[in-house]
Amino acid sequence: MQLIPLLEPIRSDLEQVARVLRAALAQLEGPLGGELRESMGGGKHLRPALVILVGHLFSAPVEPFQKLAAAVEVLHTATLIHDDLVDGAGLRRGRETLHTTWPVDVTILAGDVLLAQTAALVAALESPRILGVFADTLCTMSAGEIRQLLTSGEGHCSREGYYRRIEAKTASLCAAATEMAGILAEVDGTQIDALRRFGWELGVAFQIVDDVLDFVGDEAQLGKPAGSDLRQGLVTLPVICYLERAGSDTAVEAVLAGQRDEAHVQAALEAIGASGAVETALDEARAHARQARGALVALPDGDARQMLLALVEFVVERGY
Amino acid sequence: MQLIPLLEPIRSDLEQVARVLRAALAQLEGPLGGELRESMGGGKHLRPALVILVGHLFSAPVEPFQKLAAAVEVLHTATLIHDDLVDGAGLRRGRETLHTTWPVDVTILAGDVLLAQTAALVAALESPRILGVFADTLCTMSAGEIRQLLTSGEGHCSREGYYRRIEAKTASLCAAATEMAGILAEVDGTQIDALRRFGWELGVAFQIVDDVLDFVGDEAQLGKPAGSDLRQGLVTLPVICYLERAGSDTAVEAVLAGQRDEAHVQAALEAIGASGAVETALDEARAHARQARGALVALPDGDARQMLLALVEFVVERGY
Repeated sequence: MQLIPLLEPIRSDLEQVARVLRAALAQLEGPLGGELRESMGGGKHLRPALVILVGHLFSAPVEPFQKLAAAVEVLHTATLIHDDLVDGAGLRRGRETLHTTWPVDVTILAGDVLLAQTAALVAALESPRILGVFADTLCTMSAGEIRQLLTSGEGHCSREGYYRRIEAKTASLCAAATEMAGILAEVDGTQIDALRRFGWELGVAFQIVDDVLDFVGDEAQLGKPAGSDLRQGLVTLPVICYLERAGSDTAVEAVLAGQRDEAHVQAALEAIGASGAVETALDEARAHARQARGALVALPDGDARQMLLALVEFVVERGY
Repeated sequence: MQLIPLLEPIRSDLEQVARVLRAALAQLEGPLGGELRESMGGGKHLRPALVILVGHLFSAPVEPFQKLAAAVEVLHTATLIHDDLVDGAGLRRGRETLHTTWPVDVTILAGDVLLAQTAALVAALESPRILGVFADTLCTMSAGEIRQLLTSGEGHCSREGYYRRIEAKTASLCAAATEMAGILAEVDGTQIDALRRFGWELGVAFQIVDDVLDFVGDEAQLGKPAGSDLRQGLVTLPVICYLERAGSDTAVEAVLAGQRDEAHVQAALEAIGASGAVETALDEARAHARQARGALVALPDGDARQMLLALVEFVVERGY
C-alpha cells in the first residue's frame, strides 16, 4: 500500500481498513470485482485516515473505527464511479475510470453495489446516530451532484455556486467522517462540533487545492491530464478568481462557451496560469486550513492531533 | 390515488405514505422532482400495503409503519429507475421511463438521490436491526442486478438462474418489507420468520405472474407493450417452461439468439402463448401463493390477515 509519509504511523490501521474493504467487495467476483478492489487501493486515503486519527485522538478501541473508515472510503468510491461516468472523466488516480473499460450499465450497477456495501458497513456499527449522519451526507452529496447537472450553464461561474458544489461534494463527506468518528468515540457535543468543523474546513481546503492542481500540476502527479476540469467545462475557483480580476477574456470565455479544442484550452490554461488567480485561490484554501487548525484546539493534544495538523499542512502545501 | 379495491380499507394510510414520499422528494425541485413525485403515485402500492397491513396485524401505532412503507417504496422506485435504464425499458406503469425523457446522467443521479432518501427514511426509524435488513436487501438486489448483467448470455435460460434473479429483484424486497414491519411491531422471532417467509413467497408469486402477464396481458393493462421481456432478450418462466416442453424451437430460439425483429418476436409470442407454458408457469406461482398463505397461519387472525390473504389471491389471479 502506497502512503504519503505522514500517514506511516497509522499504516497498520489503514491496511486493516483495506482488508475490510476487500471483504466487503468479495461478493463481486471476476474481473470487475478485481478492478474495483484494486482501484480502492489507490488514492490518498485521506478520509479513512481522518476516521482512524479521531479514534486515536480519544484512545478508543480501533476496530469499529476501521469499519467506519472502510464505510467512508467505499461511499467515496461509489460516488466517484457515478460522478466520473456523469462527467465523462477518463482517468482517476492514474487509472482509467471504470466506465472507460466497462459498459455504462455495469458502471451504474457497480456504483449501486458499492453504495449498498456502504450501508451494510454502517449498519454493522449499530448506531442510529451514525446512520443519521451517513444518510444526511448521502442526501447532500447526491442532491449536490444533480443540482450541478441541472443548473450547469446557468450562473455556474459564481463563487457561491462553486462553494456550494465543493461543500456538497467534498466537505460534507470529510465532515461526516470526523463527526461519525466522534460519535463512535462517544465524546461530548462540543467536541463533536469541533470535529465536524475540522473535517468540513479541511474538505473545503482540500478541494480548492485539488482544483488548483488541475491548473499547475502535471499528469504524473495528478493521475489525470492537467486542465481536465476546464476541458469538461467545469468552472473552479482559479477560473472564478481569474474572471473576477480580468473581467472578460476571450480565451477563457471561449472555452466556457463550449469551444474546447486544444488551442483554445491551452490559451485559457496559460492565461489563468500566468495571472495571480492560482495564488489567490490558494490563499482561500489556506484560510480554510487555518479554520481547520483552529477547530483542533478544542481537541486533546497528542500524537494524533499532531498528525491531523500535519494532514492540514499536507493538504494545502502538496505539490508546491 | 388509484387503488385496487381490496386496498380501500387502508386508503388513508397509503395517502399518508404518499405525503411522506412527497416530503422526502421536496428537495428535488423543478420538473424532475415533479416527474418523480408523479411516478411514485403510480404502481400497485403492493410493498407499502404489506408494511401497513403488518402494522395493523399487530395493532401497532401507525406512524412508524407509514415511514417504513415510504422507505420501501422509495427504494423500489430507485432500483426501478436504474434497472429500466440498464434494461433500456421504455414504459413503466403506463408512463415513459425516466431515462426516455431525461439524459442518462440525470437518470443515474436521480436514482442515487432516491437511494439516499431511502437511507434517510430508514435512519429516522432509529433501529439498527431494521437498518441491517435494509442494507442486506440493498446488497442482495444490487448484486443480483449486476450478476444478471455480467452473466447474460451464459446459461441465462436456466430455471435456477431465473429464480435466483426474481428472488434478488422482487422476493428480497417484499420479504424485507414484511420482516422490517415485524421488527417495528416488536413481535417474537417465530412471527418475524413467518412474516419474512410470507413476503418472500408472495414476492416470488407476484414476479412470476408479472412475467406471465407480459405474454398474455395487453398494453392498457400492463402499462407497457406485451412481449417487452422477450424483445429485451429477457428469459422468464413461461419461456423456460416452453423450452423444457418443446425442446428446440426455431422462432423462440431465434429471438433469444438476438433476432428481435417484429416478425420473429410475434412468432415466438404466439408459439409460447398457444402452448401450455403460461399455465404451467402460473401453477408454479400458485404453489408459491399457497406457501405464502401457509406462513400466515402463524399470525394473528383478524381483518388485516384477511386482507393479506386477499392480496395473495389478487397477486396470482389478477388479469384472468
